[in-house]
Amino acid sequence: MNYPNGLKKKINNTINYGNRGMTLEEDLNVSNQYYLENDIAVIYKKPTPITIDHVDYPNRSDAVITKARFKIPSTTDYNGIYKGRYIDFEAKETANKTSFPLANIHTHQIEHLRKIVKHGGIGFIIVSFSSLNRLFLLDAKELFNFVDTNNRKSIPLEYFITHGTEMNISLRPRIDYLKYIKIGDYYEKDK
Amino acid sequence: MNYPNGLKKKINNTINYGNRGMTLEEDLNVSNQYYLENDIAVIYKKPTPITIDHVDYPNRSDAVITKARFKIPSTTDYNGIYKGRYIDFEAKETANKTSFPLANIHTHQIEHLRKIVKHGGIGFIIVSFSSLNRLFLLDAKELFNFVDTNNRKSIPLEYFITHGTEMNISLRPRIDYLKYIKIGDYYEKDK
Repeated sequence: MNYPNGLKKKINNTINYGNRGMTLEEDLNVSNQYYLENDIAVIYKKPTPITIDHVDYPNRSDAVITKARFKIPSTTDYNGIYKGRYIDFEAKETANKTSFPLANIHTHQIEHLRKIVKHGGIGFIIVSFSSLNRLFLLDAKELFNFVDTNNRKSIPLEYFITHGTEMNISLRPRIDYLKYIKIGDYYEKDK
Repeated sequence: MNYPNGLKKKINNTINYGNRGMTLEEDLNVSNQYYLENDIAVIYKKPTPITIDHVDYPNRSDAVITKARFKIPSTTDYNGIYKGRYIDFEAKETANKTSFPLANIHTHQIEHLRKIVKHGGIGFIIVSFSSLNRLFLLDAKELFNFVDTNNRKSIPLEYFITHGTEMNISLRPRIDYLKYIKIGDYYEKDK
């Protein structure tokens, strides 16, 4: 396999979620843009990692990549800073109605999140159950608890309901996920 | 111009610095790998941002990008976490012997560093004067001071000597740059 899970679909831009015509990635990008413009946080999606095999220079000031391949990412897709804290997360959509298949997240992305939490960062995953129109944030520690104590290939929806936080879609920011993160023992929204 | 400054050269991998046959980027990558393996910090270079125009699927499990262009990066190249602190920096090489041309750093990368520092992160630039075989770390605040008080197109070497810290190349890690960063009012090396 030469491209990460889901990437092909993402590029063709065919996944919508919640029938709103926006992808989770687009919603997160505009939310991050809102955080940036309102001086709340500086969080970016990392570029898609690729291996460049060939570049053409049709003229002196132009460069066109004519051959490249997708690489499996070493880290999560999003990171940045919020209130002096390092923030790191992965965002995924699933059409599945009862559980989130762990095949959507690479093992080394989970290992990356473990390192982040160990070094004092805030890690989590955002999962959209697109067919259900439900969106959750799951703290990295709850993710680790699940994978460390279960020998299952997917996380049941129920686990997100009981151990995660369900998020609403609003206007601005579209997904106010920073409200739902846990800093120390407290959720931002309860402060 | 369709590719960021210096990118063409980086891809052709023709810039060496200090005649050691290694690029600054390679040295930083192995240093970051050392930090990661020794559980000191989690810092990565972001992938090169590109716009993908066309992807071929020669078979079901393969994806080949057949047309893409380089994008000007919105942020710096490197970020991560060290001792719970958000770390963010840009690394550049210059063959110039007397100054570092500011054209090497995009204005919005400097603006990005301003936001990082404002939000409590640690920002800096690493500059290699390759012809001189000298390597410096300059704290972001010293960079801002320079660009805010000078109407110059380059930062003189002297400014790096007086306001930055010269770094040695060693064996492991190759560039121990975390030793030279400033946390609060103190340099890590002086603690």
